[in-house]
Amino acid sequence: MKKHNFYAGPAILPEEVKRKTSASILDFAGMGLSVMEISHRSPQWVECMDKAFSLVNELLRIPEGYKVLFLTGGASSQFYMSAMNLLNDSEVAGYINTGTWSAKAIKEAQLYGTVKEIGSSKDDNYTYIPSVLDSQGIKYAHYTSNNTVFGTQFKELPDVNVPLIADMSSDIFSKEIDINRHDLIYCGAQKNMGPAGVTLVIVKESALGKVTRDIPTILDYRTHISKGSMFNTPPVLPIYVSMLTMQWVKDNGGVAAMNLRNEAKAQLLYDEIDRNDLFKGFVATKDRSTMNACFGLKDDTKKDIFLDMTREAGIVGIEGHRSVGGFRASMYNAMDIESVEVLVSVMKSFSETYG
Amino acid sequence: MKKHNFYAGPAILPEEVKRKTSASILDFAGMGLSVMEISHRSPQWVECMDKAFSLVNELLRIPEGYKVLFLTGGASSQFYMSAMNLLNDSEVAGYINTGTWSAKAIKEAQLYGTVKEIGSSKDDNYTYIPSVLDSQGIKYAHYTSNNTVFGTQFKELPDVNVPLIADMSSDIFSKEIDINRHDLIYCGAQKNMGPAGVTLVIVKESALGKVTRDIPTILDYRTHISKGSMFNTPPVLPIYVSMLTMQWVKDNGGVAAMNLRNEAKAQLLYDEIDRNDLFKGFVATKDRSTMNACFGLKDDTKKDIFLDMTREAGIVGIEGHRSVGGFRASMYNAMDIESVEVLVSVMKSFSETYG
Repeated sequence: MKKHNFYAGPAILPEEVKRKTSASILDFAGMGLSVMEISHRSPQWVECMDKAFSLVNELLRIPEGYKVLFLTGGASSQFYMSAMNLLNDSEVAGYINTGTWSAKAIKEAQLYGTVKEIGSSKDDNYTYIPSVLDSQGIKYAHYTSNNTVFGTQFKELPDVNVPLIADMSSDIFSKEIDINRHDLIYCGAQKNMGPAGVTLVIVKESALGKVTRDIPTILDYRTHISKGSMFNTPPVLPIYVSMLTMQWVKDNGGVAAMNLRNEAKAQLLYDEIDRNDLFKGFVATKDRSTMNACFGLKDDTKKDIFLDMTREAGIVGIEGHRSVGGFRASMYNAMDIESVEVLVSVMKSFSETYG
Repeated sequence: MKKHNFYAGPAILPEEVKRKTSASILDFAGMGLSVMEISHRSPQWVECMDKAFSLVNELLRIPEGYKVLFLTGGASSQFYMSAMNLLNDSEVAGYINTGTWSAKAIKEAQLYGTVKEIGSSKDDNYTYIPSVLDSQGIKYAHYTSNNTVFGTQFKELPDVNVPLIADMSSDIFSKEIDINRHDLIYCGAQKNMGPAGVTLVIVKESALGKVTRDIPTILDYRTHISKGSMFNTPPVLPIYVSMLTMQWVKDNGGVAAMNLRNEAKAQLLYDEIDRNDLFKGFVATKDRSTMNACFGLKDDTKKDIFLDMTREAGIVGIEGHRSVGGFRASMYNAMDIESVEVLVSVMKSFSETYG
């Protein structure tokens, strides 16, 4: 039976990407060797790296003055590394708190300067995107563009007049971005970009070199800029799969086309959540994520029955995050609308039987 | 034609590991999903992580009081992270300088305390393993167990009476280790353990928590101990392939059996280097690495001819590191002796024609 993969991350990848990866694990670029067992300095791998860089540049239309890096350590490493590279002890950074990930980003940034919470939706369990109250005196404003746990998403950039820093782990490549408003964008790959194990960083070069602290060589973004992300051995396989996934995005119309697909999928599911009397959405309508729809049953006692029905339909990974409960349908780029149709049809059947 | 993969890293992996990985990229554990696209919290993945931990514990006979971690960032990240976690500003660490990697480790450790070079082979371009001259007043002694670039290897542990810290990136799992002498062992996986993208750390728990500085959460070893290396999304695919490679080591007799295989391969090649009048070894005989044999032609003008002959025999990745020149034959666990026999036979043919 076909599986419908709603996991929040690591998450669904295009069939074509899996096929090509599986083949390259056995024989890469006609070398008679696996993509995993060749030198990262070999011309065949260097060509792959170059292709990965140019796909990011092309798909996200990276402007002059910005550099693309492939690092490791996930967004969780960028929580401290961003502040370590961009914030002096005496400076203040503004953070918008939309739960979990922003809270962790705030905690780590506090090691390197003063953090001012310039907006928060904590008062209503992070079910909406807060406005920025006061951005006076801050060096930059940090936000989490899409909150995977709570299912909220910024539809517009935060209203501040300082450079932005964004954790875009769960909606990178899902829509177009105004890069120019940002000094730094980072994301773990394992949602919309590729498998776990590589971290994408897009940084404005002129924002660097302005902190006075000592930074270990490998934690200084400038090291990786100067070495083309090959200061040390890069995570070859995760970069390779990400490259193939970005190529798939390009072949399917780029991020603008992805956005249309994602809007259509999200609309289909949210319409059913709103129409169906047995279900309720968790998030303020205007702030609902196109990537992760968080919803639940009005009567939670029938949760297991519904989950059984989804399983019988081939649906996987739809249980809500442990801190939120209910259900979470993650509908990243690689998901066909067919999978959302299957979920909606199970919701309809469920309400016909138990409504 | 069969390829003989002598790359220094990323490096050769067992055929069986590649076959299993290729299959799991398409369908993992009968889930109908790729190993790359399932949640790291799914029971199927958790079972994989558990198996990876227990294989390290079993193969290296990790004693009580030590913890195994799967991190990212490579040995290059451990250069600073080890000192950040284990060395106070007021303390002195001893480092043995065997070139390149130890030099980088020294540079990063200097950010966190005083580094005393307690031995160095710089005077002879790192062609031997130096004795420890003076280890008075140091908190720990750091060494690089095998130097991939220069082809040297410690045959005995450094003669000091303080705890050891070792970068074992290029000879982990190649032979038995006396873990008890160490406070910390680290290695990038991409030589003897798996593909690029995961870093193995073995740490004595009682050595932690003794530095006074603030450490970002994700850079504190204790974070990863308490979360079973799942504080954030782990590098799933690199861990998976490493797990399969460790299983292959176990199925083939464990590290003691690997050591015998590795000694036999190295002996075969070094015997030919010594016997053949056209070649010379670069390293002091007693300190020659079983993993990376560095050698060259007495008459370097014929280098390209020899390289052509190796290529015709299916040999890949044998050019020496750019800082050393000549040739480097890396013969990690996964290499069969047959590949070394092919290299030796090319050396013999070469000397018959040009000798």
